[in-house]
Amino acid sequence: MAKELKNLTKRSENYSQWYNELVVKADLAEQSDVRGCMVIKPYGYSIWEKMQRALDDKFKETGVQNAYFPLLIPKSFLSKEAEHVEGFAKECAVVTHYRLKTNEEKNGVVVDPAAKLEEELIIRPTSETIIWNTYRNWIQSYRDLPLLCNQWCNVMRWEMRTRLFLRTAEFLWQEGHTAHATREEAEERARMMLKVYADFAEKYMAVPVVQGVKSETERFAGALDTYTIEAMMQDGKALQSGTSHFLGQNFGKAFNVQFIDKNNKLEYAWATSWGVSTRLMGALIMTHSDDNGLVLPPKLAPIQVVIVPIYKNGEQLQAIDEHVAGIVERLRALGISVKYDNADNKRPGFKFADYELKGVPVRLVIGGRDLENNTVEVMRRDTLEKETRSCEGIEEYVKTLLDDIQENIFRKAKTFRDEHIYECDNYEDFKARVKDGGFFLCHWDGTAETEARIKEETQATIRCVPFDVEQTPGVDMVSGKPAKYRVLVARSY
Amino acid sequence: MAKELKNLTKRSENYSQWYNELVVKADLAEQSDVRGCMVIKPYGYSIWEKMQRALDDKFKETGVQNAYFPLLIPKSFLSKEAEHVEGFAKECAVVTHYRLKTNEEKNGVVVDPAAKLEEELIIRPTSETIIWNTYRNWIQSYRDLPLLCNQWCNVMRWEMRTRLFLRTAEFLWQEGHTAHATREEAEERARMMLKVYADFAEKYMAVPVVQGVKSETERFAGALDTYTIEAMMQDGKALQSGTSHFLGQNFGKAFNVQFIDKNNKLEYAWATSWGVSTRLMGALIMTHSDDNGLVLPPKLAPIQVVIVPIYKNGEQLQAIDEHVAGIVERLRALGISVKYDNADNKRPGFKFADYELKGVPVRLVIGGRDLENNTVEVMRRDTLEKETRSCEGIEEYVKTLLDDIQENIFRKAKTFRDEHIYECDNYEDFKARVKDGGFFLCHWDGTAETEARIKEETQATIRCVPFDVEQTPGVDMVSGKPAKYRVLVARSY
Repeated sequence: MAKELKNLTKRSENYSQWYNELVVKADLAEQSDVRGCMVIKPYGYSIWEKMQRALDDKFKETGVQNAYFPLLIPKSFLSKEAEHVEGFAKECAVVTHYRLKTNEEKNGVVVDPAAKLEEELIIRPTSETIIWNTYRNWIQSYRDLPLLCNQWCNVMRWEMRTRLFLRTAEFLWQEGHTAHATREEAEERARMMLKVYADFAEKYMAVPVVQGVKSETERFAGALDTYTIEAMMQDGKALQSGTSHFLGQNFGKAFNVQFIDKNNKLEYAWATSWGVSTRLMGALIMTHSDDNGLVLPPKLAPIQVVIVPIYKNGEQLQAIDEHVAGIVERLRALGISVKYDNADNKRPGFKFADYELKGVPVRLVIGGRDLENNTVEVMRRDTLEKETRSCEGIEEYVKTLLDDIQENIFRKAKTFRDEHIYECDNYEDFKARVKDGGFFLCHWDGTAETEARIKEETQATIRCVPFDVEQTPGVDMVSGKPAKYRVLVARSY
Repeated sequence: MAKELKNLTKRSENYSQWYNELVVKADLAEQSDVRGCMVIKPYGYSIWEKMQRALDDKFKETGVQNAYFPLLIPKSFLSKEAEHVEGFAKECAVVTHYRLKTNEEKNGVVVDPAAKLEEELIIRPTSETIIWNTYRNWIQSYRDLPLLCNQWCNVMRWEMRTRLFLRTAEFLWQEGHTAHATREEAEERARMMLKVYADFAEKYMAVPVVQGVKSETERFAGALDTYTIEAMMQDGKALQSGTSHFLGQNFGKAFNVQFIDKNNKLEYAWATSWGVSTRLMGALIMTHSDDNGLVLPPKLAPIQVVIVPIYKNGEQLQAIDEHVAGIVERLRALGISVKYDNADNKRPGFKFADYELKGVPVRLVIGGRDLENNTVEVMRRDTLEKETRSCEGIEEYVKTLLDDIQENIFRKAKTFRDEHIYECDNYEDFKARVKDGGFFLCHWDGTAETEARIKEETQATIRCVPFDVEQTPGVDMVSGKPAKYRVLVARSY
């Protein structure tokens, strides 16, 4: 394994391969024997759990409650919302039978043809249909609104080309589905949840994001508006990291969800939905990590501090063990998660490489001389800088250091991102530069034709109309027509 | 709704109907339009979340880590373990296709026959097969062991007759899967997890359980031993509430999971698996609740204390609001979850009935005279007893009261259970009495024939060989042959 650790491909050699190797070598996830479905390994899952906990707390602060809706959706439900069916009823897993039986050779099982379902069931690719079918019975009056539900669950989309975390047939996510009495309240909720995602991305994941609204082409199937957060990976490509949709009354009408409003009039309910998925793991990995392995933000690191002893013999180890016990206790008292790795079947060098690969933010090393001097070697994972410090007050120092690392990797990612955002008004220039990555702020005439041409000729797409870009007049860089917006264009995952 | 609240069927009239109505009226869950699949509503889900959190913490204290494995299992995997396939490969949801297409009338979608899978996939009914197929690559040496993984997920078994929480086609659960280097360690882990379940049931759910080992007939398909916790519902029937399995080397051999042991010998890994599900919600509801609705143990109640004001006018309400704000703050400071319900669109009587139905452990009512006297009316949900107390120190009083309710409902359930456990050595007597419910401790000759006859003639089954029953000599009540064990026999859910 020590040999494997060193074998990580460099980002500059092959960024894509670096990512694929890192996910597996850092014990985050692996492909399963089921096409396109991944196994999330304990170390990877523990990062996901920390993301879930933080997001879930934030959702609940806004009044959202968790619930659970069925995995399977009757095929006919998908057809009820005209645009939705186009987007989601195609590549999906279809359950057609409900029983197996022993085969004739008595050495295996076959599908029992007698157990064919009257109507096929689809494994949810997203749950708007089944949830709005349920909401019909929950909503009668404006007093039943708003209804703010979220579920943490698995979904399935039969993707042809899959990559761990970024695009898998099955993935884990949360999907929030809210119902409102007014258009304004629903629109506000959709934007509110985007802000929750953006705050989470920046403050927990340390991933800077551009917030904006999608073009009509890139909208969620069935939405009137799709809001998005877009992050820049180290290769300059965009990763859509979370979306929040204002669905208007489309699902209210499709599933006949009506309520008596304050004026005693029958109205259709207004809807939003919003989700983030295990794809966030991909954003986290690709934003911060380096050629030595993962770099994790302290707020999401399962192990924040690892302590490794260096010793000549059992007697010295015992002395270090006793000394470290006090440090561990003081760190834990400050709410810091610590691992003391005194396993004797691995050499310190192996441990160092392994914890670097796994992205543990702070490493403390204590040897015989440190013991004499009451010192400790402190290494921070983000910069790999080492220094020797007194054990006196080390816990407060580490706490501050963790905060500093959290800020530093965000600042670093933001500087990189900002250096790779370009205003660009010339299509030839754009075509020449976009293949090297980066976000391009371009004038767009607002037509699907121009959008399609850019995509076809450059593989880049309009990621969003950013909220915080000043919308000044100009001409579309492709068509030369008057521009409707300045939009963010980039190649993406 | 006020009318509906009062319409709950009495337990003495129809226990089964009382349960079905209560689950729906207390907003815990409801049937979906997908056959056998339930919707877990926010209030019900918030209880499940509290269960999850407590169990998850306990698992982690024993070294278990969470992970995630695929939802879909290749059909051929099920046949690899001979007994397992018999138990699980029959009634299950089968995915045969991966695409839909628009139908000829262009008004709906049909399964695309061109998108037929080469090998059908099964929605997991349990995950031993896919997990042990994965473990093969994770386990090479005894240093990789023990491997202690758990996953929280959904599973599906195509049950013909379903009941909310008790037996549904899709349900939520956790499934732990551990791999060990020795038989002893695996057996110890299986028993350890049963103890975790028993402690959780008794200390959090306040549900007393009998711990024991299943007969061969009732074992999990593929296990060498199945340990179980059995709870008694108010109708005297048993509810199997959690199981832990010692799987021997069955899955290690079926999936070729071998490791080099300390003596440099190649060995098959030893396995356990263990799970509890949303069925626990059924146990919780049926153990404590009464004709007025749910009774929840304070440790799992989403709202532990509700405060309801009674007022003549807005001015008085405002005075009560201000007064209550202080009480709420003091309660929250003690970690108590409080809801102050001053909504003006519902009368106090409606609120009282609603919170009784929902099982909120403690209700505080404050009216105008209370305000003058600095008093509050305290009602405990378990006994429905009311008393008036000073607001001075009310937070400490409520805290103690919550502990008292937790203990009291456990004691009450345990007294009921113990009064309905009978030693019985006469089969005629058994047959006459078992239909009225209760747990019968009977001598059993250990044969499947006797077990089958009891089941056929009385619908009762051997629930387990209890750990804490003294095994004295005797004769089987059915066959008259020498008994092997004294076992627990009961009708069950």
